[in-house]
Amino acid sequence: MTASRYDVLGIGNAIVDVIARAEDDFLVAQGMQKGAMQLIDEARARAIYDAMGPATESSGGSAANTIAGVASFGARAAFVGKVKDDELGKAFAHDIRSINVKFDTRPATEGPSTARCYIMVTPDGERTMNTYLGAAQDLRPADLDEVQIAAAEVVYLEGYLWDPPQAKEAFIKAAAIAHKNGRRVALTLSDSFCVDRYRGEFLDLIRKGTVDILFANEHELRSLYETADFETGAKALRADAKLAVVTRSEKGCVVIDKNDMTAVPAAPISQIADVTGAGDLFAAGFLVGLARGKDHRTAARLGGLAAAEVIQHVGARPAVSLKALAAENGLAV
Amino acid sequence: MTASRYDVLGIGNAIVDVIARAEDDFLVAQGMQKGAMQLIDEARARAIYDAMGPATESSGGSAANTIAGVASFGARAAFVGKVKDDELGKAFAHDIRSINVKFDTRPATEGPSTARCYIMVTPDGERTMNTYLGAAQDLRPADLDEVQIAAAEVVYLEGYLWDPPQAKEAFIKAAAIAHKNGRRVALTLSDSFCVDRYRGEFLDLIRKGTVDILFANEHELRSLYETADFETGAKALRADAKLAVVTRSEKGCVVIDKNDMTAVPAAPISQIADVTGAGDLFAAGFLVGLARGKDHRTAARLGGLAAAEVIQHVGARPAVSLKALAAENGLAV
Repeated sequence: MTASRYDVLGIGNAIVDVIARAEDDFLVAQGMQKGAMQLIDEARARAIYDAMGPATESSGGSAANTIAGVASFGARAAFVGKVKDDELGKAFAHDIRSINVKFDTRPATEGPSTARCYIMVTPDGERTMNTYLGAAQDLRPADLDEVQIAAAEVVYLEGYLWDPPQAKEAFIKAAAIAHKNGRRVALTLSDSFCVDRYRGEFLDLIRKGTVDILFANEHELRSLYETADFETGAKALRADAKLAVVTRSEKGCVVIDKNDMTAVPAAPISQIADVTGAGDLFAAGFLVGLARGKDHRTAARLGGLAAAEVIQHVGARPAVSLKALAAENGLAV
Repeated sequence: MTASRYDVLGIGNAIVDVIARAEDDFLVAQGMQKGAMQLIDEARARAIYDAMGPATESSGGSAANTIAGVASFGARAAFVGKVKDDELGKAFAHDIRSINVKFDTRPATEGPSTARCYIMVTPDGERTMNTYLGAAQDLRPADLDEVQIAAAEVVYLEGYLWDPPQAKEAFIKAAAIAHKNGRRVALTLSDSFCVDRYRGEFLDLIRKGTVDILFANEHELRSLYETADFETGAKALRADAKLAVVTRSEKGCVVIDKNDMTAVPAAPISQIADVTGAGDLFAAGFLVGLARGKDHRTAARLGGLAAAEVIQHVGARPAVSLKALAAENGLAV
């Protein structure tokens, strides 16, 4: 095993967020399920955009947000994902490169436009997402650079990669390269509806050891094991997974490994502005902690700190240096 | 004079803001003058974008921000400005139409892309702007709908219109249509450097009565009369202008007419996040007040309220309903 060039390399859907404030009534009128992510086609994307209020555009994508968090902690990061060479694709590439993330995936020159996620933020700070995958549909195994994958301590993958047709093949290929090179593979379950769509495959990945580190929130855990009871889900996960973290919003998280189940409290916050990116940033802090040799509890505290930062402002990426924030909280990485 | 269809119609450069946080060192390294607006060409736009940090895109433009504020007060508003039919141009059109502003200017189908303003927000909340005018260069008299202009109580124009070659002709034509129909014409001086570029022409507009209502901040007033002394500038303005408002940041504003000079304090704020849009939103509140028959002091308080709202968050347009905010402050419009 050679020395690593990256602490974390993320593979995910490269998406630009189109964020607007909305009242709950709007979600009802539009038939949106509050708090969920729904896949939409181009016609529906147009209809939603026509109906929604003034918006801001900023780079998003679950794994890409995590990687932005990793970079904000000062760790070495890379991202693989597909945009088109249009204005939003250029904005996505600019944003991720400008924070020192290595991003070399060749943009699509034809076909659908860069992916967009229309996000409605309700007055309670909850976000409801509608994703038009566009160019992200085209991510495929040939987009992976084997040497780059092999050089990352952890390869981080989002469950949403099961949606585009060939991205899951890229996922499997990346995991195989990582393991062949003695690296670890992490997965986020992304969304309880995503788990509903691919439950059997996700359980297979966990049970067969394709995934070394699993991130899930409570809803995703319940969906994975089709249980309403948290304890039942946690026990089942302990039997299946090498290492897993279940995030529980204001209740903090539980780190689960073969020896222990460790509850870690959430970081205090003064107000919730927009929960978009909470899980993504938790994963960033936890992975940076692992990559820097911290114990699970400390890694979970770093995750909690990053999640707390991102939910206190609109947008899914850090607004301050997480490295500085960690140091201020006695958690220098 | 027929009944009006709009309280305020704004004409300005249609611009998308590309906003990033930056340290003061970055401004120095880039040779940017803090707090100012600089016009840039396409090559410089590319260089700045390459150098700057991750950004969010949102609709901007000085007069367009004012018109967004007018609409947020629940008043009837229209906007005239030139975008291209590209992704950012569509975002600009979406954002302004989604808040019930009438926006019918035909987008350019060829030529440069939609205008962008690269805005660096420093830790003190000050903004430094670099504007690539792009498609906004192409605004011309033929873009004006005479019937629409005639139907607005107030036609509001930005001094920045003096930069694109034919926009000032559109400005003069719009003012003539307005006066022929018994309407009023308002102008903002936009920026002290803009005043430097066009001092003589701006003084002419004021002295000849092309402009009925003038908005300026202290810097612009000093630049207009080439004086370091506020009182000297204010006296000169009183001699020249029918009605003027000089904004003075935390010191509030002074309303100047032939009979009176009325100082009105600023609205209280808890923190400054980003001063972008402060002057634009002040003008929105003041014009809504005038259109609704309020006295100058009340109109100035509405302006102060709108300015205070916009500087407490990132972005140049209101994040809440100004109509509701005004009502909560005993200033229902």
